[in-house]
Amino acid sequence: MTAAPPAGLTVLPVAGLPEVQPGDVLADLLAAAFELMDGDVVVVTQKVVSKAEGRQVRLDGEGAHRAVVDAESVRVLRRRGGLVISETRHGFVCASAGVDRSNIADGWAALLPVDPDRSARRIRAGLRARAGVDVGVIVSDTFGRPWRRGLTDVAIGCAGIAAVVDLRGTSDSFGRELHATMVCVSDELAAAADLVMGKASGVAAAVIRGVDPAWFRESSVRAEVVRPPSDDLFR
Amino acid sequence: MTAAPPAGLTVLPVAGLPEVQPGDVLADLLAAAFELMDGDVVVVTQKVVSKAEGRQVRLDGEGAHRAVVDAESVRVLRRRGGLVISETRHGFVCASAGVDRSNIADGWAALLPVDPDRSARRIRAGLRARAGVDVGVIVSDTFGRPWRRGLTDVAIGCAGIAAVVDLRGTSDSFGRELHATMVCVSDELAAAADLVMGKASGVAAAVIRGVDPAWFRESSVRAEVVRPPSDDLFR
Repeated sequence: MTAAPPAGLTVLPVAGLPEVQPGDVLADLLAAAFELMDGDVVVVTQKVVSKAEGRQVRLDGEGAHRAVVDAESVRVLRRRGGLVISETRHGFVCASAGVDRSNIADGWAALLPVDPDRSARRIRAGLRARAGVDVGVIVSDTFGRPWRRGLTDVAIGCAGIAAVVDLRGTSDSFGRELHATMVCVSDELAAAADLVMGKASGVAAAVIRGVDPAWFRESSVRAEVVRPPSDDLFR
Repeated sequence: MTAAPPAGLTVLPVAGLPEVQPGDVLADLLAAAFELMDGDVVVVTQKVVSKAEGRQVRLDGEGAHRAVVDAESVRVLRRRGGLVISETRHGFVCASAGVDRSNIADGWAALLPVDPDRSARRIRAGLRARAGVDVGVIVSDTFGRPWRRGLTDVAIGCAGIAAVVDLRGTSDSFGRELHATMVCVSDELAAAADLVMGKASGVAAAVIRGVDPAWFRESSVRAEVVRPPSDDLFR
């Protein structure tokens, strides 16, 4: 059976979030800034999640950034000049192990959250408690990739929304069963959210409304998206 | 100066496209199926572009698919069992050189368009002529990637809309100049469009309304997104 085409989506920037401080409860800030509805997907950038969780470190001197990157890496895949592509404790492969010096005070860097799926679960639970809404939450970050220039936003954590949707067993428009069509909808949602954020505009969250209700379930980026090295042809 | 946050986007499926045949003029089919507006971005999947351009080949027997994949590849990066990751003539690195047997008649495969940027330019020019609208056009395809499970849609061709937006020279929210922030908005637009398509639903195009007007310009995926091997750490 061919599924009915889904209706449209809207992607809305969350404006008016204050500068986030360690200890801030992001769910409270998000609920105050945006009138959420059941079935929304809230995409929050890693930067504010890390700030709220106190994942900032002071950099003393030029070598400090490199030392922090090394400490955050479990395996270095490539090094060229100042560029390091490494694997983090979570299993993400990205530049500088996700250690980031943009949109943060001079002399400081933001580290990735310890467990971004847990960060997403905490925000989701907080939004239910604070605003009474049942939403999906994605924590996003900006990664490069091999073979293609330019950065895109991807999901590093999720809660209440599928990281990957398995379309195997559904049929294509010729009525044949589809094989091996696992769509990483969490990355696509993160990418869509980035379109209304802009790196420079200070918009650190977005809401996607109209997402297929079938995609809302317990999930985890770490369990469903991170590819085990044994299953990976490029590590 | 901090840029003003952009307003929201809407992502709308284009329903009611007929089954595309070789020789069909996609711009005519799209214009008949959807009331486009100036400033829309139209995302069209590779499958219907390839069909309209007659890029289908008959597969005779089991070895035929592999022979076609080899013929479409200029370099094989990895091979494991039936899985081939190779580089196409365009410089894309993907599974099976983009040769695809889903959503096509049994015994046939669809090849990538010869020049997907040109395909996008042709659709854009056709929409201007047929519907009098000035839109961006992206041709999308579904690729896997290393390190992360699940497929996402990416741009393989574009016209009238930036493949990559260079945010260098703009300032972050702390007023410092951003370095090396090239965002691949064409891939993010392709990903957003996929969210309303679904692999099984037969929706082969989507329209994104509300895209930042600054992003509309002449561009090319091949020139701006394909990373030259000399600049690539994973080839």
